[in-house]
Amino acid sequence: MPDPSVVSRPITRVSDGALERREDAVAVERALEIRVDGRTVSVTLRTPGHDAELALGFLAGEGLIGSRAHVKEVAATAAACDDQPDAVDLALAPGVRMDWSRLERHFAATAACGLCGRAHLESLRAGLTPIPVARRIEPRALAALPARLRDAQLVFRETGGLHAAALCDANLAPLVLREDVGRHNAVDKVAGWMLEAGRYPAEGEVLWVSGRAGAEIVLKAARARIPVLAAVGAPSSLAIDLAAAAGMTLIGFLREGRMNVYSGVERVSP
Amino acid sequence: MPDPSVVSRPITRVSDGALERREDAVAVERALEIRVDGRTVSVTLRTPGHDAELALGFLAGEGLIGSRAHVKEVAATAAACDDQPDAVDLALAPGVRMDWSRLERHFAATAACGLCGRAHLESLRAGLTPIPVARRIEPRALAALPARLRDAQLVFRETGGLHAAALCDANLAPLVLREDVGRHNAVDKVAGWMLEAGRYPAEGEVLWVSGRAGAEIVLKAARARIPVLAAVGAPSSLAIDLAAAAGMTLIGFLREGRMNVYSGVERVSP
Repeated sequence: MPDPSVVSRPITRVSDGALERREDAVAVERALEIRVDGRTVSVTLRTPGHDAELALGFLAGEGLIGSRAHVKEVAATAAACDDQPDAVDLALAPGVRMDWSRLERHFAATAACGLCGRAHLESLRAGLTPIPVARRIEPRALAALPARLRDAQLVFRETGGLHAAALCDANLAPLVLREDVGRHNAVDKVAGWMLEAGRYPAEGEVLWVSGRAGAEIVLKAARARIPVLAAVGAPSSLAIDLAAAAGMTLIGFLREGRMNVYSGVERVSP
Repeated sequence: MPDPSVVSRPITRVSDGALERREDAVAVERALEIRVDGRTVSVTLRTPGHDAELALGFLAGEGLIGSRAHVKEVAATAAACDDQPDAVDLALAPGVRMDWSRLERHFAATAACGLCGRAHLESLRAGLTPIPVARRIEPRALAALPARLRDAQLVFRETGGLHAAALCDANLAPLVLREDVGRHNAVDKVAGWMLEAGRYPAEGEVLWVSGRAGAEIVLKAARARIPVLAAVGAPSSLAIDLAAAAGMTLIGFLREGRMNVYSGVERVSP
């Protein structure tokens, strides 16, 4: 049986300006719906595997169950098609009551994830209008970006503990850099700067992020119409799918002198 | 004016088994409530600074506003006391309507953050019962943990793109390691394993995480009664506060041979 947590994707590896097509292993990111006695308590983006553990641990972490004995049955099922979430169904043990009101109060004020809602997910690809290829960028200039941005990461330099996101123009000159403990927050701050500066939506620019490129980051960039997303870390499978649907160029593992291009390689001219 | 995104905290730096007390700069993590026309649309944990941008960018990223002109006014206010979130109030421009139903459908099925709900935050510290100090751990053994766990990170080795969490016993022998694109999911999977194994709650054990230690990770560990949380990356200010309230030992920047202890140093005997 193939490992459900890893998938192979065609990529273009760029090293010192030379392009090479190859296959690369990518971590899978897919939606999982957690239901208790038939009621949805969470839809989360996760890497498949150990889904029953994930559901049990999530409920315990929220303080909703205190031991394994509170749950009678746990059943994990894979979705029938790609546009539906996988699911874990839990049945509470007889006599066990969950504090639903607490859960609802919590959910009502939470929005860390722009992708998890099921209705949202189904309409996701459909809602993305591909961004046309207007300009190309020079891979050597892109590879030099991390060094250019390093000095602007003030709080990271002090604390060693922050994510950063930066918007650059088509010549890769940095326009703005924002830092936050939350990756999504750093990207939201950049998007807010773009709105304030009258640069939203922003055709022809590059968004750089200090960490991994998950699906939510790609979606935020796609909404801002930023054609190129370049991440220091790895992309997920869903991030690659969404970037391709949005006509975006998705770059991962951007380090000095090298990078992997996961979609939209036509914008990266040698 | 001091920088609101950085705070100084007393720490113990451990290097090659020697302990040294010093001050260290830590990234601030605090709750921010985003309100549109008086209605709460999100409560998020973020690093203070550029809060108006964060709110504008969040709304644009969710597809709820399309340009700056959709918003008449943006006002950011700091909370009067530590137990309340800071806030950004936005007033929509005349004639602009937001699709509240879309937002609610989204929120109803979202739970990436165990801390954001306001009611939740207020009762957070109060709900934590300090974990007693039962055992001490040897700092040299702890410093050797990253190397011990490296071979178990199978998907990371293949993809370079996953977070991991591992539970170790008091002698630092790994009991379980789980990987996921989401940091919180990896921790939830470990907690689920503990439940299945009859080890939840788990006095006397160590939770290792591959990334940063944010407030939510500390809360999940505290609920599981894991006395020691050791992170490869940096902790946030709120993570340190919560770990101290829970009587937990919080370790950051755990690399070969060295680490910083942010709370509960009494469990780290030289």
